[in-house]
Amino acid sequence: MLKRYLLAPGPTPVPAEVLLSMAMPMIHHRSPDFLPILEAAKKGLQWLFQTKNDVLIICSTGTGGMVGSVNNFFNPGDKVVVVNGGKFGERWTKICQAYGLTVEEIVVDWGYSIKPSAVEAALKKDPSIKGVFVQATETSTGVYHDIEGLAKVVKNYPETLFIVDAISALVAQDIKTDEWGIDVMIGGSQKGLMLPPGLAFVSVSEKAWKRNETSKMPRFYFNFKKERENLAKNQTNFTSAVTLIIGLNEAINMLRKEGLENIFKRHATLAHATREAVKAIGCGIYSKESPSNSVTAIEAPQGIDGQQIYKNLREKYGITGAGGQDKAKGKIFRLAHLGYADTFDVITGIAAIEMVLKDLGYPVKLGTGVAVAQEILMK
Amino acid sequence: MLKRYLLAPGPTPVPAEVLLSMAMPMIHHRSPDFLPILEAAKKGLQWLFQTKNDVLIICSTGTGGMVGSVNNFFNPGDKVVVVNGGKFGERWTKICQAYGLTVEEIVVDWGYSIKPSAVEAALKKDPSIKGVFVQATETSTGVYHDIEGLAKVVKNYPETLFIVDAISALVAQDIKTDEWGIDVMIGGSQKGLMLPPGLAFVSVSEKAWKRNETSKMPRFYFNFKKERENLAKNQTNFTSAVTLIIGLNEAINMLRKEGLENIFKRHATLAHATREAVKAIGCGIYSKESPSNSVTAIEAPQGIDGQQIYKNLREKYGITGAGGQDKAKGKIFRLAHLGYADTFDVITGIAAIEMVLKDLGYPVKLGTGVAVAQEILMK
Repeated sequence: MLKRYLLAPGPTPVPAEVLLSMAMPMIHHRSPDFLPILEAAKKGLQWLFQTKNDVLIICSTGTGGMVGSVNNFFNPGDKVVVVNGGKFGERWTKICQAYGLTVEEIVVDWGYSIKPSAVEAALKKDPSIKGVFVQATETSTGVYHDIEGLAKVVKNYPETLFIVDAISALVAQDIKTDEWGIDVMIGGSQKGLMLPPGLAFVSVSEKAWKRNETSKMPRFYFNFKKERENLAKNQTNFTSAVTLIIGLNEAINMLRKEGLENIFKRHATLAHATREAVKAIGCGIYSKESPSNSVTAIEAPQGIDGQQIYKNLREKYGITGAGGQDKAKGKIFRLAHLGYADTFDVITGIAAIEMVLKDLGYPVKLGTGVAVAQEILMK
Repeated sequence: MLKRYLLAPGPTPVPAEVLLSMAMPMIHHRSPDFLPILEAAKKGLQWLFQTKNDVLIICSTGTGGMVGSVNNFFNPGDKVVVVNGGKFGERWTKICQAYGLTVEEIVVDWGYSIKPSAVEAALKKDPSIKGVFVQATETSTGVYHDIEGLAKVVKNYPETLFIVDAISALVAQDIKTDEWGIDVMIGGSQKGLMLPPGLAFVSVSEKAWKRNETSKMPRFYFNFKKERENLAKNQTNFTSAVTLIIGLNEAINMLRKEGLENIFKRHATLAHATREAVKAIGCGIYSKESPSNSVTAIEAPQGIDGQQIYKNLREKYGITGAGGQDKAKGKIFRLAHLGYADTFDVITGIAAIEMVLKDLGYPVKLGTGVAVAQEILMK
């Protein structure tokens, strides 16, 4: 029997409580049974997003939320800035270009975080830039971008919307949507929210709603205005993903019991322990700046293939992490500590890495990294 | 204790086997664990769609599949024909117009089915029409359109794609995608497939794939070409809705055991019994032609409000059917016999209708409709 452990940066493990809540008999999304369920989800998401704005609930993957954030607030030819520091930064560029926006990319070296001053320089040069797109956590490099710093910059430009893909950051990072002034923020179900894939969440500020009025792109499925109108009636525009929304409420209940401050502290500690532990066994951290609390991108030791580590973790030890993508492929492997994750998930991951490295002939003293993690996690 | 019965035309009841299969621990969609699951789903859908073509699996409601069927195969200004015989026919028009197509609507009176000759006349007049859009089952009126007859017509026009929304017809009606020559057919998870909402399925013919090459509309989330490329690798373009796809395989396993012929016969019999039973207690059938096997639209007896019947069924007897929409509101109520439905679902529904009508002062002899249903269902 090989027990399986899911330590990937999404989908993440779904707690049994959530799985079982989703096994309840189906109910009809337009019936009075469902309205209080959607209302609870709506309020729960506002709590989690730290916002008083509407948080739309869309039946799609997180990418659907990203697409909607482009085609509900812009027009073809609009000039926007995309922070591209990895695979998901690239995705912003591709989506914006697919919809005919003119993209000025600020390319950030993989493993580094954006300097808000770089965005400021771009906006100063052209204050008519219509939007700044960024990831909170760039999952491919394990970097958390300085959303607070960026928000401070963008806030001064009345023409510019600040749009944050927080799909893999939500729950793991303390992002103060309203306080900082984020106009559009996107979350997804299968990350910190401990749910299966299938829901995108999008918070929208009044500044963004105003812009929505002037955006004339064709849209039907991701029609945020219609979603907003339906949300006011505790409905969604099309058939609600009833099961996932029931699970969402269960997940939010679990998170509420812990409290936002504790949740963020837990993720910070798990991430810190992971980083220190892998450093102690001779691996580097790929994120040279601002490593994220969601996922750690770990550099394989010299002479060892990162993909091999990922593969051996899976095949020999039942641990599903993630490999590296594109230019990081082979150089790194990734371990998440996101959502339904605690002390012993980190210890399991670190212990398994030690064992895989030893298998591969790397000189590691078993227990070294584990001890470092234990030390940090006991505090 | 009020037991709840879901007899709505979607979402429909999800069998416990399916619910429990979806409660299995999460697995990663890019891991080797998931590939055989997606492969099985792909093959199962081809069986159910009666096609050798790819059936794309999209994380969205059925409407997402409809939107993708417009923006992957057409260009703004393209002239298309929409068969509009109800709420969902209207939806085709709205989607096509949202994407800038020029729509020629063939309006069919609610409760009636399209004459293929009407479509033929439109195509004869303008053979450059790029597409014909129709519902297989128009859920709002309970009518099944003559898809075979329409396919025969459209097949003769090399410029014209035949696009069928079979969201609520799939499983209940025998639709021979390849044999008849349907270019694009859309299904949804929460109807005959006995799953929660969250998946759209789209089969695409070679004729349609060729057209896809010339379609230049902006698209990113519903990018069928990318979905096709991923499907060939047993993947989806973005994060797969892992849970629902696992449930899909379980549902298809159940359906395979029954066999296509038996499935269609079962639905035809349940629908027939429902119609004869409600007629026996004095209700009319709203579908004056070609009533569907998925859902029966029942006319409320003179002087009784259809919405009241729907409401009393729910509140007093725990039966969730559906009311009427738009111009049919108040005139009708609807009862589905779709997916996970058998003899005693129909008997429950009919018995409850009798009881509600009696409550409302309508002179009904209890058991009359039930006996008629029993008679038919025992054969």
